[in-house]
Amino acid sequence: MQEQLLHAEGNAVVNAAIIGASGYSGAELLRILSSHPGVRVQKVTAASSAGKRVDALYPAFAGQCDLEYDELVPAGLGGIDVAFVALPSGEAMKIIPLLKERVGRIIDLGGDFRLRSAELYELYYRRKHSAPDLLSGAVYGLPELNRDTIAAAKLVANPGCYPTSAILALLPALKHGIISPAGVVINSLSGVSGAGRSASVDMSFAEINENVRAYKIGTHQHIPEIESVLTEASGAAVTASFVPHLIPITRGIYTTAHAALTVALTAAELLTLYEEFYCSHPFVRITRQVPQILAVTRTNYCDIGIAIEGRTNHLIVMSVIDNLVKGAAGQAVQNMNLMFGLPEATGLK
Amino acid sequence: MQEQLLHAEGNAVVNAAIIGASGYSGAELLRILSSHPGVRVQKVTAASSAGKRVDALYPAFAGQCDLEYDELVPAGLGGIDVAFVALPSGEAMKIIPLLKERVGRIIDLGGDFRLRSAELYELYYRRKHSAPDLLSGAVYGLPELNRDTIAAAKLVANPGCYPTSAILALLPALKHGIISPAGVVINSLSGVSGAGRSASVDMSFAEINENVRAYKIGTHQHIPEIESVLTEASGAAVTASFVPHLIPITRGIYTTAHAALTVALTAAELLTLYEEFYCSHPFVRITRQVPQILAVTRTNYCDIGIAIEGRTNHLIVMSVIDNLVKGAAGQAVQNMNLMFGLPEATGLK
Amino acid sequence: MQEQLLHAEGNAVVNAAIIGASGYSGAELLRILSSHPGVRVQKVTAASSAGKRVDALYPAFAGQCDLEYDELVPAGLGGIDVAFVALPSGEAMKIIPLLKERVGRIIDLGGDFRLRSAELYELYYRRKHSAPDLLSGAVYGLPELNRDTIAAAKLVANPGCYPTSAILALLPALKHGIISPAGVVINSLSGVSGAGRSASVDMSFAEINENVRAYKIGTHQHIPEIESVLTEASGAAVTASFVPHLIPITRGIYTTAHAALTVALTAAELLTLYEEFYCSHPFVRITRQVPQILAVTRTNYCDIGIAIEGRTNHLIVMSVIDNLVKGAAGQAVQNMNLMFGLPEATGLK
Amino acid sequence: MQEQLLHAEGNAVVNAAIIGASGYSGAELLRILSSHPGVRVQKVTAASSAGKRVDALYPAFAGQCDLEYDELVPAGLGGIDVAFVALPSGEAMKIIPLLKERVGRIIDLGGDFRLRSAELYELYYRRKHSAPDLLSGAVYGLPELNRDTIAAAKLVANPGCYPTSAILALLPALKHGIISPAGVVINSLSGVSGAGRSASVDMSFAEINENVRAYKIGTHQHIPEIESVLTEASGAAVTASFVPHLIPITRGIYTTAHAALTVALTAAELLTLYEEFYCSHPFVRITRQVPQILAVTRTNYCDIGIAIEGRTNHLIVMSVIDNLVKGAAGQAVQNMNLMFGLPEATGLK
Repeated sequence: MQEQLLHAEGNAVVNAAIIGASGYSGAELLRILSSHPGVRVQKVTAASSAGKRVDALYPAFAGQCDLEYDELVPAGLGGIDVAFVALPSGEAMKIIPLLKERVGRIIDLGGDFRLRSAELYELYYRRKHSAPDLLSGAVYGLPELNRDTIAAAKLVANPGCYPTSAILALLPALKHGIISPAGVVINSLSGVSGAGRSASVDMSFAEINENVRAYKIGTHQHIPEIESVLTEASGAAVTASFVPHLIPITRGIYTTAHAALTVALTAAELLTLYEEFYCSHPFVRITRQVPQILAVTRTNYCDIGIAIEGRTNHLIVMSVIDNLVKGAAGQAVQNMNLMFGLPEATGLK
Repeated sequence: MQEQLLHAEGNAVVNAAIIGASGYSGAELLRILSSHPGVRVQKVTAASSAGKRVDALYPAFAGQCDLEYDELVPAGLGGIDVAFVALPSGEAMKIIPLLKERVGRIIDLGGDFRLRSAELYELYYRRKHSAPDLLSGAVYGLPELNRDTIAAAKLVANPGCYPTSAILALLPALKHGIISPAGVVINSLSGVSGAGRSASVDMSFAEINENVRAYKIGTHQHIPEIESVLTEASGAAVTASFVPHLIPITRGIYTTAHAALTVALTAAELLTLYEEFYCSHPFVRITRQVPQILAVTRTNYCDIGIAIEGRTNHLIVMSVIDNLVKGAAGQAVQNMNLMFGLPEATGLK
Repeated sequence: MQEQLLHAEGNAVVNAAIIGASGYSGAELLRILSSHPGVRVQKVTAASSAGKRVDALYPAFAGQCDLEYDELVPAGLGGIDVAFVALPSGEAMKIIPLLKERVGRIIDLGGDFRLRSAELYELYYRRKHSAPDLLSGAVYGLPELNRDTIAAAKLVANPGCYPTSAILALLPALKHGIISPAGVVINSLSGVSGAGRSASVDMSFAEINENVRAYKIGTHQHIPEIESVLTEASGAAVTASFVPHLIPITRGIYTTAHAALTVALTAAELLTLYEEFYCSHPFVRITRQVPQILAVTRTNYCDIGIAIEGRTNHLIVMSVIDNLVKGAAGQAVQNMNLMFGLPEATGLK
Repeated sequence: MQEQLLHAEGNAVVNAAIIGASGYSGAELLRILSSHPGVRVQKVTAASSAGKRVDALYPAFAGQCDLEYDELVPAGLGGIDVAFVALPSGEAMKIIPLLKERVGRIIDLGGDFRLRSAELYELYYRRKHSAPDLLSGAVYGLPELNRDTIAAAKLVANPGCYPTSAILALLPALKHGIISPAGVVINSLSGVSGAGRSASVDMSFAEINENVRAYKIGTHQHIPEIESVLTEASGAAVTASFVPHLIPITRGIYTTAHAALTVALTAAELLTLYEEFYCSHPFVRITRQVPQILAVTRTNYCDIGIAIEGRTNHLIVMSVIDNLVKGAAGQAVQNMNLMFGLPEATGLK
C-alpha cells in the first residue's frame, strides 16, 4: 500500500509547464507528473509538434492526458510555478533568460547551465554560451550532493545522465579520500533513449541491434561536468578518463569506474562507508549483488555495487540508473519536490 | 495529478496474499499492489524460493518491500481477505479447494478454472481435472464481459493472456452479429514473459533473439477458452483457428484477427460500434492509428484498432495488451477491485 | 568441405554491376557476390554516396572490397554482363529503360516490374508507371515457379520479400487444388532491414525495440503481387487478406498462412505433397519441426512447415526466409545463376 | 570473386573430428569447416545429444549436413588428422590425455591448457588440474603472437574470447613499451553466446533483454590468461583490472582498454605503430573510425581503434571480435590452417 504522500487538503498545488515536451525526457516528465499528487501540468510546449495532441505523438497517453502542445515559448505562463525545460543543449540558453522573468522556478534538463565556466562550456559544447551571467546562479541539481541549495534555487541545472551515475558512484570514495583523484577510469554503457527522439541512420534499429559503439572518446561534453563536480565536492583535483558506449537497450545506464585505492580497507568497511554516506538519501541503494539495469528500470533509483580488486589494489564501483528517470525526468521531479517543500520522494515511488 | 483513489479514511483495507509469488506474474502483482491505496499485501508464498527475501529474487524491490516468501500454502492465513493464486496450471487446482475453506475470495491467474467442462480441460491441458466440482462456480474474470458476476464471485478465473486480447478484439463484432462466427482466424505474437520465469534452452536469449517461432499450432490450451467464451457471449458457435508466435520482446501481446463480414458497414459505423461497446470500460481504448505494443506496456490497457478490407470483405481487428498486466496481474487487480466494491481502476492508472 | 563450384578454368566470368549498392540489399548483394566463384563485381553505384568507399559506409568490407561508389548511372558500363538494380520502387523504372540499351541482362530487386498491369501498379504504388511497355517482357524471378523462363530472360523482376515467403508457402496447395483460393489469410512478421537503410523516427531503435506494429493493412503493394502470381500459377482466382507486421529483429520474415482445405488429407499425405513439389528445388526445405527464422538467417533457404487444424479444417502453413537473402539479394543471385547457365546454387551455399 | 584457396588437386584433405559439437562453438566450427575447401569433418561427438542428428539440434544444417552426434569419445578415430575439443573447461583435461594417443594434432577451445601454471589454474578455475604434465607442451593459439610455434604444435590451447580481444588490443603498445604495464584497465562487453548453450534463468531472454550485468569482478578465469600472455610477450609485469559485462546481443565482444602512456606520441605515430605491428596478419584491421561489433559479426576479424586522451595522458584502445569466430571457432580454424601448412585465411574469408 502506497504511503499517503499528499500534502494536507487545501494546500496549493504546484502548477507546472514543460517547455519542450515532445522528446523522450519531456514525455517521461509528463508521465511522472501525471501521477504526482502535488502537481498539475498546465502546459506542455514543443517546436515542430506545436498544435498536435500529446497522444498523437505518444499513444500511451490516450485517455490519460488531454493536453496538446502549445508553441515552444507560449504567451500565457501566468500562474505557472515551475517550468521544466527539456530542450537540446544550446536551445535552452536562448529561452531561459526570458523564462526567468515570467516563471519563478526553472529546472533545466539540458547541459547549458551545468558548468560554472563559459570557457569550459565552449570547449566541450563547441558553441559560445549566450547567457554566461546566469551560470554562477544556477544550482547543480544532484540532491545527494546539494539538497539544501537546491531547495532555495531559482534555476536548477539537472545533471546529465552519465554524470549522475558516475558522480554517485565515486562521491563517497572521493569525499573520504580513499582513492586517488587522478586517473580515475569511467566506462559507461547507455541505452539509446539518451540520444533523444530523432531520425538518423545511426540510431535506426538495424544499426543499433546486435551492435555496440563507443563514441566521443575523450571529447564528450559530460567529461567536464563529472570532473568539475567531483573536484569541487571533494576538494581534490579529479581527472577522469571517460568512454561512453551505445548498446542495444532503450533505457538504462551502466557505469563501471576504476580507481586506485590509497588506503587499506576491507570490503565490509567499504560497504559501511558507502551505506552511511547515502543512508539519508532515498534513491541510492547500495547492493551486495552486482547491480543490474532491470532493477532500476522506470524507477528513480541509482543502485551501486562496490568491489575491491586486491591484486591491483583498485576500487571498482558499478552504478546503474534509468537514464530517463534518475538520469533526467525523475531527478528533475526530485529537485522540484525539494524546491517546493514536498517530501523528496513524492510521486517517485 | 493523480485522482484521489483512496476510499474514505477509516475504511478497512483489503488484506491480500499472493500464493506463488516468485514468478513474473506474481512479482507483477506485488508491484501493482504495492502502490494500490486500498490493499495491503500480507503474505507472499513460493515453492522452491520459500525462505528467501523478495528482493533477493527481484532486486527491483530492494528498499521497497520487506517481505520474504513463506511456504507455498502457509499455515496462517487468518485475516486474509483475498488470495491471488499465481501458479502454473495443474498446481492451482490442487491447492484452491483447501484455500477456499480458509480465504473468502480467490483469484486464480492460471488456467485451471477457466473452462466449464472438465472434459475440454483434459483434452487441451492433457491432465485430469482434480477439482471439477468447482468449475461451475468459478466466474470468468473478464470485467468487460462479466463485471456484475465478478463482483459477487468467490472464485474468479482470471483470463489467459491470449484470450484477453482475442476476446476483447472480437466481442463487439460477434455480439452485434456482423461477422461470421465460423472460421475466424487469430494470429498472436507474444513476448517471452508469458512463458514464465524458467530455465530452458528454448527460452534462452540466444534462441529467442533475432528469431520467431510459432508453437502449439491447433493445440494451444487457450483455443477452447477463446471459443467457449465467445460462443457463450454471442450465442453463435464460434470456431477459431489460432496460432501463437513467440517473438523477441519481454512484455506484450499483439493479436491480429480476421473474420468474414456478414453485413455492409462503413469504417465509421464500425468504429462507432466498437467505441460504444466499450464506452463504459476504462481499460479498452479504440484507436484510430494502428495499435502498437509500446502504447500499453506496463499498463492495464487493451488498445484495439479496426480495419475493413474491402477487397476480401474481411474485418481485421488488432489488439495489444501487456501480457503481465491486462493479460495477468493487472486484470486480477481489476477483478479484485470489483469484488471489494472499489472503483474498477483503483491502483491501475 | 565445400563442393567445387567453379566452372572450368578458362571460362569467362560474369561481370556484374550493382546499381544502387548503398542500401542493405545492395550491400548484401555485394557480400554474396564477393565470394561467388563465377562473378566479378566491376562496379557499384549510388546516388548520395557516390564517391565514397564502400567500407566507409559498411566497415565490414574493410580489407575485403576496394570499390568506391560510382555515380548512380555511370558512363562506362562496357563489358558489364548483368546489372542488378537495388533502388527504391519508382526509381528503377526511370533508369532501366536506359540500362537495357547498354547491358544485356538486368535483375531488378524493386517492385516496378513485378506486376503485369500498369493499372494495378498505379493503384497500389500510388504513382504512374513510366515504362509500361517493359512490363509484359519482364519475367517474375521466382526460380521455384519460373526456372526456365528466367534462364532466357533479359529483364527479371526479383520478387518482393513478403511475396517470396507467401507464394512459396501456398503454391503447392493451390496448384494441387487442395485449398479454397478465396479468403486465404496471410500474416507476416518482418525484420526492419526490409524497410531499407533510412533515417526516420519510426525505424529508430527506441520505437522498434519491445514493440510490434502492423501497417498498410489491406493496402500493401505486395498484395497484388501475391494474388496475381498465385492466380496465374494455379488458374484459380486467389484472394488473400494480408497483414504485415514490423517486429524487433534485423533480418527475417515469418509468414503464417491459413486456408480452408477442400479435400480430406492426412498430415503425412500433405507432407509428401509439399516435399515432392519442391524436391528439385535446392533452397526450399520442408521441415517437420515448426520453422524458425534463425534456421535461415544469412542463407538463401526458405523453410516451410505445414499443419492441418482438424477442428476448423484449415491448412496452416508457416514459411521463413531471410528477407535480405531469399527475399532479395540471394534470390537475385539465384536468378543470375540461371540466366548465365551456372548451377542454381553457385555462391549461395 | 573468391580467391582460389584450394591446395592443388590431388593433395590430401585434412580429416577432422569435433569433440563436443553440440554447443555454440562446436556448431560454429562445423559451419566454418563445412565450407572450408581443405577439410572434411568426419565425426562430431556430444555427451547428452549423442545419437541425435545435427540438424535436429540446429535446423540451420538441414539439407547441408548429414552427420549425427557420435558418443563423446568415440571408439573409431582412425584417420582423423585433427581433433577440435569444444568442451567446457574441466571436461577437456580429462579427455585430451587419451585423445593425444589416438590423434596427432589437437586444438582445445576451452581453458584447460591456456595457463602454464597448474597453481594459477587451480586458483582461478577452482579445481585441481588433472593433466598438469601437458601444460608446458601446449602452445597458446594466438596466431598474431605465436604463428611459428603453432605450426609445429601437437596441442594448441585456443585463446579465450575476452583474452583474444584484450591481448590484440594491448600487444603492440606493450611490446613497444609505450604504456605502463601496471594498472591497465580492461572493460569488456560480451554477447550471451559466450556463455554457451545452456538452460538457466540468468541467461533467459527476459533476464538478459533490456539489461546489463557485470560479473566475476576481479575473479574471472581470463584474468591470469590476459596477464600472463601479455607479461611473457612484453617482458614487463603486466597487471590488469578486468571487468566483463553481459549485454543483450547474441554475438560479439567489445573491449575498451585504458593505459597510462609513458612516452609522447602523436595520434598518427600511434596509428602507424599499430598498423605496422599487424601488417602481416590478415585478421586484424586497424580502423580510423570507432570500431563496432556489426563490422566483424560472423567474421574472423578483430577490428581495433586507438585514441590518445591528452587530458589524462591515457591510451584508449577498443577492439571488437565475434566471440564465436575470432574468439573461438574461427581462430581454431586459423590455427589448424597453420598446423597443416594451409594459407592462414583458408576457409575464413
